[in-house]
Amino acid sequence: MFGSVRKCVNSCFVNTYIVLRNAKLHTRPDFTKNNFNVTRGYYNTLEENHIQFFYQLLGEQRVIVNVSDLERYNVDWFRHLRGNSSIVLRPKTTEEVSHILSFCNQNRLAVCPQGGNTSMVGASVPIFDEIVINTDLMNEIISLDDTSGVLVCQAGCILENLNNYVNKKDLMIPLDLGAKGSCHIGGNVSTNAGGLRLLRYGNLHGNVLGLEVVKADGEILDCLNTLKKDNTGYHLKHLFIGSEGTLGFVTKVAIQCPPKPKSINLAFLGLQTYEKVLKAYKLAKHSLGEILSAVEVMDTPTMQLVNEHLHLPSPIGDYPFYLIIETSGSNEKHDLEKLNTFLDLSLVKHFVLNGTVTSEPSKCQAIWNIRERIPEAFHKDGYVFLYDVTLPLQNYYTLVKEIREYMGNKAHRVFGFGHLGDGNLHLQITVKKYSPEIKSFIEPYIFEKVIEMNGSISAEHGIGFLKAKYLHLAKSNAAINLMQDLKDVLDPKGILNPYKVLPRE
Amino acid sequence: MFGSVRKCVNSCFVNTYIVLRNAKLHTRPDFTKNNFNVTRGYYNTLEENHIQFFYQLLGEQRVIVNVSDLERYNVDWFRHLRGNSSIVLRPKTTEEVSHILSFCNQNRLAVCPQGGNTSMVGASVPIFDEIVINTDLMNEIISLDDTSGVLVCQAGCILENLNNYVNKKDLMIPLDLGAKGSCHIGGNVSTNAGGLRLLRYGNLHGNVLGLEVVKADGEILDCLNTLKKDNTGYHLKHLFIGSEGTLGFVTKVAIQCPPKPKSINLAFLGLQTYEKVLKAYKLAKHSLGEILSAVEVMDTPTMQLVNEHLHLPSPIGDYPFYLIIETSGSNEKHDLEKLNTFLDLSLVKHFVLNGTVTSEPSKCQAIWNIRERIPEAFHKDGYVFLYDVTLPLQNYYTLVKEIREYMGNKAHRVFGFGHLGDGNLHLQITVKKYSPEIKSFIEPYIFEKVIEMNGSISAEHGIGFLKAKYLHLAKSNAAINLMQDLKDVLDPKGILNPYKVLPRE
Repeated sequence: MFGSVRKCVNSCFVNTYIVLRNAKLHTRPDFTKNNFNVTRGYYNTLEENHIQFFYQLLGEQRVIVNVSDLERYNVDWFRHLRGNSSIVLRPKTTEEVSHILSFCNQNRLAVCPQGGNTSMVGASVPIFDEIVINTDLMNEIISLDDTSGVLVCQAGCILENLNNYVNKKDLMIPLDLGAKGSCHIGGNVSTNAGGLRLLRYGNLHGNVLGLEVVKADGEILDCLNTLKKDNTGYHLKHLFIGSEGTLGFVTKVAIQCPPKPKSINLAFLGLQTYEKVLKAYKLAKHSLGEILSAVEVMDTPTMQLVNEHLHLPSPIGDYPFYLIIETSGSNEKHDLEKLNTFLDLSLVKHFVLNGTVTSEPSKCQAIWNIRERIPEAFHKDGYVFLYDVTLPLQNYYTLVKEIREYMGNKAHRVFGFGHLGDGNLHLQITVKKYSPEIKSFIEPYIFEKVIEMNGSISAEHGIGFLKAKYLHLAKSNAAINLMQDLKDVLDPKGILNPYKVLPRE
Repeated sequence: MFGSVRKCVNSCFVNTYIVLRNAKLHTRPDFTKNNFNVTRGYYNTLEENHIQFFYQLLGEQRVIVNVSDLERYNVDWFRHLRGNSSIVLRPKTTEEVSHILSFCNQNRLAVCPQGGNTSMVGASVPIFDEIVINTDLMNEIISLDDTSGVLVCQAGCILENLNNYVNKKDLMIPLDLGAKGSCHIGGNVSTNAGGLRLLRYGNLHGNVLGLEVVKADGEILDCLNTLKKDNTGYHLKHLFIGSEGTLGFVTKVAIQCPPKPKSINLAFLGLQTYEKVLKAYKLAKHSLGEILSAVEVMDTPTMQLVNEHLHLPSPIGDYPFYLIIETSGSNEKHDLEKLNTFLDLSLVKHFVLNGTVTSEPSKCQAIWNIRERIPEAFHKDGYVFLYDVTLPLQNYYTLVKEIREYMGNKAHRVFGFGHLGDGNLHLQITVKKYSPEIKSFIEPYIFEKVIEMNGSISAEHGIGFLKAKYLHLAKSNAAINLMQDLKDVLDPKGILNPYKVLPRE
């Protein structure tokens, strides 16, 4: 029964996501090329004979050239970026993608692979006039082996649809995101998407068993392995997981689906200090072990924000820190027993000051609402600078405190929340009004601080267009040079998703 | 308490491994170059001034040139292969490895990276006169963060030592192998080693957080990330996981260690048909879910073999198939309850004919003995052809039946056992005496059958030297060409572990 509520909670979040997107439709960003210091690459421009080739290949219905229809493919989710593409292609098959890329490569036409266009870093929109190749019609589920749990599907399948499909066989997709109602599995793979289930099920490098990829020159690379163990030669698929469409175009995915849990429980805890948060987390890892499926943290300003804008108060009163701990297991009685034991120990050891444990759907929903409606709340709080970073746990909250001090009265609010179990912090800064001065006051300072604290400047959102100029902070010269070498091998003319990931000249 | 017994069981297996190795010391294989159709690459040969360089870099003690001392570095574990290297280098630091490779690259000297030299496919021995670079002195544990569970160490640390080390902090290495008393973590990573814990904890692509690697030209590539989430640029470390030392030399490893389970239970089950084995496995996945940690299968001939040579009978009488199901969890009572429920259901549904469940150390040990002493038994059964393959579960046992029929009276015994939960089958054929004719009767026929059944010709052992000529059966031309392109980028002079993995001319 909880499952359906959990789905409802996620749907609320997805609805929030769509509401926010629609709310912003009236603000139309200027062309990216005018707003950012970026130079068009040495590519040819689209000509009439190119369009004719695409018409012939896909039919007129699957080639979009109408200016108003193009808008949604050119503009990113945050509506910070706007490309100037004059064509969107909607292939249905791998072979069509192969023909398109082969043609574009021969004619030196740049392309932008696009799934659900939910990138947070501008990875999925054209920057200049790149041809958009959208995967929305590549949405076929090819097979599901309910013994091994292996699902094979095309890249354009929507994450939530896949999860609903495998749920019927008591399986689940080991990946869950706020954008799951829109994002495509091909995009998830290409960006190595993280999300809520990573703590328990690990990342896509572990869960993706095989990929089919089309190379920049149109060659089809069949690495669509469906076996858990395959040590025959180089593990090529990993080149395309997390390279954001710059090394190849993912067309099919084979993914390992774990069994769907039969019981889910939730604890909401209040804590005095970040040190106690860490102690409670460590205890949870050892007490709950195999059933621990989410550990989310929030600080007081986050709770105040949610309460102020959405009237969602803490169910246990006010505390400096809050933890949400979720368990997913195969036996409700056992799971609840473990969770209660953990809570008792946490209280006895004074790690936790207060808490509530529930498996009751409406209470769970109320708790998840607090966490998952944070984006809705901060959008009401002014202009928001959003940072998605990973930090070693001892430095996790130090960053929030230091940035709060650094910002002083320049910020309206500085707050931190996130997937503690993965060291993934969402640090947000709200200001009354955006200005280039405030942006350059924050960046690159904040990224330098993250690096100084041995963190990662992008935990799960990737580099895309927006963070490419900060890549040198995260990667050594040797690593960036090797990245460039790989790009040169796989895409020598640089037609695949240019201006993204790799540093621009 | 079970923990210590489990350790003892594994130690027994390791001892078996050492005993077998020692037993074979008197048989000295001919040089590989004489036994196999392989041509020496265009490399320079070792000269006095090269040796002087190495003496100066490492000191005389860490440069082995004495012929009798070289033997163990030149000969593989199976004693099927014998290289002709006249020098072994034993660096202690990354910088020394860097100097060595830079020098070898400049002088076009081929090298063979070597860890514990436990490869089953000849990946860790020189084929001609390659310089052996052994990691046995690179055995420093650098750090262990007991909150995040991240261990950082040098590549030459022995797997079992690492496990013992992290056990003290209630953690475990998510990898367990028969060879764990000898193999090095750098070798495990370079071969993407599988083993007993893969079912539960996933493969090394998911568990290795970071690597430090020295490139063929001596450049040090620092990808020693210790964060669970890091989406900054291409995920370069995966290039080196499973490429068997042909793309780079792994010098440091950061690995995620899960909590050590507090309770382990074991079930030994008898089943009528392979179809029932599959049904029981599926039920176990759903009933035991998060605590399922091993699912091993054995057929009747395997049990007969173990009984015949080692006097270890089945504890539940004779059945066509046997399953060993292990659970590892954080609560003994809960785990046993789940296991009993699963067993009751299996009996009611007639999936299982008989079974025993235990958490009692001596009984567990007796059960594991049967499974883990199989190698000892088959070495007493004649000359053994050993195949390590993965198959979709519906074809898993079909292969054994078909090969048994194909072999007819040419084989003494054809039997199958393995990690069912991962689709990993160890298919063994024993014959009275080795002959080239019997070998060519079996190979490549068996590999072609595996491919025909959508399997992998190497589940966990890799390609190495012995399977390189069959790579084309497993990988498309496009994939092999891309492998070669990557090799050309990372090691343009081809000095790293030549004659391995990639097809030879």
